Amino acid sequence: MTAEPTLALARFVASADSRDLPASIRHEARRALLNWLGCAIGASRHDTVERAIAALAPFAGAPQATILGRGERFDILHAALLNGMSSHTFDFDDTHLKTIIHPTGPVASALLALAEHMPVTGEEFIHAFVLGTEVECRIGNAVYPSHYDIGWHITGTAGVFGAAAAAGQLLGLTEQQLVWALGIAATQASGLREMFGSMCKPLHVGLAAKNGLQAALLARQDFTSAAQPIEGRRGFANVLATERDFSRITDGLGATWELAANSYKPFACGVVVHPAIDGCVQLRDEHHLTAAAIEAIDLEVHPLVLELTGKKAPHSGLEGKFSVYHSAAVAIVDGAAGQAQYSDAKVADPVIVALRERVHAVVDPALSEDAAHVRIRLHDGRTLERRVTHALGSVGNPMHDRDLEAKFRGLCAQIIDDPAIERLIAACWSFEANPDSGAVARLAVPQQRSVRATA
Amino acid sequence: MTAEPTLALARFVASADSRDLPASIRHEARRALLNWLGCAIGASRHDTVERAIAALAPFAGAPQATILGRGERFDILHAALLNGMSSHTFDFDDTHLKTIIHPTGPVASALLALAEHMPVTGEEFIHAFVLGTEVECRIGNAVYPSHYDIGWHITGTAGVFGAAAAAGQLLGLTEQQLVWALGIAATQASGLREMFGSMCKPLHVGLAAKNGLQAALLARQDFTSAAQPIEGRRGFANVLATERDFSRITDGLGATWELAANSYKPFACGVVVHPAIDGCVQLRDEHHLTAAAIEAIDLEVHPLVLELTGKKAPHSGLEGKFSVYHSAAVAIVDGAAGQAQYSDAKVADPVIVALRERVHAVVDPALSEDAAHVRIRLHDGRTLERRVTHALGSVGNPMHDRDLEAKFRGLCAQIIDDPAIERLIAACWSFEANPDSGAVARLAVPQQRSVRATA
Repeated sequence: MTAEPTLALARFVASADSRDLPASIRHEARRALLNWLGCAIGASRHDTVERAIAALAPFAGAPQATILGRGERFDILHAALLNGMSSHTFDFDDTHLKTIIHPTGPVASALLALAEHMPVTGEEFIHAFVLGTEVECRIGNAVYPSHYDIGWHITGTAGVFGAAAAAGQLLGLTEQQLVWALGIAATQASGLREMFGSMCKPLHVGLAAKNGLQAALLARQDFTSAAQPIEGRRGFANVLATERDFSRITDGLGATWELAANSYKPFACGVVVHPAIDGCVQLRDEHHLTAAAIEAIDLEVHPLVLELTGKKAPHSGLEGKFSVYHSAAVAIVDGAAGQAQYSDAKVADPVIVALRERVHAVVDPALSEDAAHVRIRLHDGRTLERRVTHALGSVGNPMHDRDLEAKFRGLCAQIIDDPAIERLIAACWSFEANPDSGAVARLAVPQQRSVRATA
Repeated sequence: MTAEPTLALARFVASADSRDLPASIRHEARRALLNWLGCAIGASRHDTVERAIAALAPFAGAPQATILGRGERFDILHAALLNGMSSHTFDFDDTHLKTIIHPTGPVASALLALAEHMPVTGEEFIHAFVLGTEVECRIGNAVYPSHYDIGWHITGTAGVFGAAAAAGQLLGLTEQQLVWALGIAATQASGLREMFGSMCKPLHVGLAAKNGLQAALLARQDFTSAAQPIEGRRGFANVLATERDFSRITDGLGATWELAANSYKPFACGVVVHPAIDGCVQLRDEHHLTAAAIEAIDLEVHPLVLELTGKKAPHSGLEGKFSVYHSAAVAIVDGAAGQAQYSDAKVADPVIVALRERVHAVVDPALSEDAAHVRIRLHDGRTLERRVTHALGSVGNPMHDRDLEAKFRGLCAQIIDDPAIERLIAACWSFEANPDSGAVARLAVPQQRSVRATA
């Protein structure tokens, strides 16, 4: 029944039963939430978040929900906005590879705010989260790639539907109200790729969370919208895309789950550099390498690596993300390539600078995008080699739970204390057992407001 | 310099001097504000507004600004949203005929909320209002008609720029901050024509007001966006339109004023019926006609009239708007065709029903859209005729100030008391003399909260 995808999605959400969720999808949801919380906490002191709070706090409502990593409390709409924005600020959040949607930010940010305002068990949260990401990614599937190619930031435009569906499910909307909620979401769908490189990119994710939540709240009061907001002649899919396939919304709905195709970045930079970093970290850990022991690092990489990340001498942390040389150096020295490895200070660190000048990279067109060959020559005459065929975090080699935990610890390290970090990790792995899912937000703040990131 | 229209608009707003405003444009601004206030007050008890308040009030901030016609006070962002929505709910607001933008709602709703939160003189308000509508309509001119034809509700998509520019001007943003504000507006531009006929249509106007105001507040804190949000490769004009002409943004900027092309509806229905109503009201007033005196009314009308408004026996007030027969009948009986003439009760009124059955309409393809011929046969044997060549409210026959006053009185009659109505009219005609423009909002509420519309 592809003629009425909006109605199909509303029915799917209204009639869903959490007992139908496969265990693997539940676990993927927990992984997604852990990753999202880490990204949001990690970026919570970034200028993007600071400026948004300075601008909007004077107009926010009652202290209903928590800003992750900070502790201020605002009304749930502003909390959804700020947490969604924060979670995308480092560009380190999850990716639905079929559509390049970052699915968790819009949906989880809306849900967590709502879960601080009304009773929501962990089981209910996980269910609504899976439904929301399902709606979001299926709508994305239906309009990708033409929608993205035109210039729409698909996380913003598809995300608002996911947030509306998820919040609507928690609010107990009827099928008709869910159609209206999807319609109110559709008519707010926005976010231009022209904004990439500016603070508006993460803003899109926050707006998707907030506007989707707002759509569900309006629909709960029978605020009406169109009957076919997605598929109608002047609806979302016709106005914001040049090609569309509604069967990608309806086929297998309730039987297959888009979260199964979700992925997580182990390193805080463009995905093309990940294989080289992965190889360097592996050799470093196995052989306890230090920078001083290394004569040279020779990399063979996919052609895109030098095209996109060939910067020999980066001057800022942001430029460091576009330098395979810097990335290999931090992989050796720190055994990591998280946000901390892309600070301005790290890029100027003499040890890193000296090592990155001994990194050489050549293109091997035979390599796939998720592969690289790393050869490290040591002063003691030995040569170590590692061929990476599927980089960590790629579809063929997903991050393990322990890798996600390590990433989480790295993101949160300077923001909340270690016991709180471990409590949050445990809370994510046992998410459904929590009778009050909103409590997770209160775990995710510094114990003393004076704790600040030094980075 | 058409290459950088965003920068041109930012410069225009940042460097504008209110002394450059022509007297005629100042007066058009006052007329627009009077008309907008009446529409917002008139619809303030409509279900659309009631449901939005029920949905959003629990999440609103401090009581900073007034909801017109009601008296509740919310944070300025929610006040902008609700007043913008209310002003478009009756579809009775102004129209920039070149683009079908309803220009005042987004801009004035943002400004009035801001003017209750910071000191804004009437002179400053009028200046910011003219600049905001100028930015809004010029961006509309640049993308119309392809943008509208695709399916965008242009009042939402262009309105957000107008609200951002106007609020940004009052907030004293720099040229760079105005570029950012226009960018944050661009990336929120939304509103689908698929929503026409639902509560989302007026919501678009409220969202434009709120999101534009939000954009200006963010930009004031140096929240960044793109450098070329309107003209960039993946910016507003390329992503949301198939054709664009940036010279329509920049040519004559500061020398010509789009408010000069603004128009106001005298009657609360589709514009095609206006000539017939105009002729009936004229004959009724001149000859003191009553329904009882009339044997038949014969109308010659433009072909679109029967195509769009040929409903012989409407069953609801909304259906009455699509009936030239009902419209002619109320024009005779009430001498008006305001919102009150399109209530469910009026459509069922036996006097109206009996008269509308004596109304006959035939098409004359030679008539222009703003023309009609009215012939009324009386029981006493006389026949009265009136040829309307340019209906009241058309470009060729704009509403007089006294007509706008009468419309305003009709809209406000059951909501605020007569002395308050007259004070508001006087406040609009002397808008620039007001040292505190935000005080206008406090004039526009019932003295007792228990006063409610009976319609």
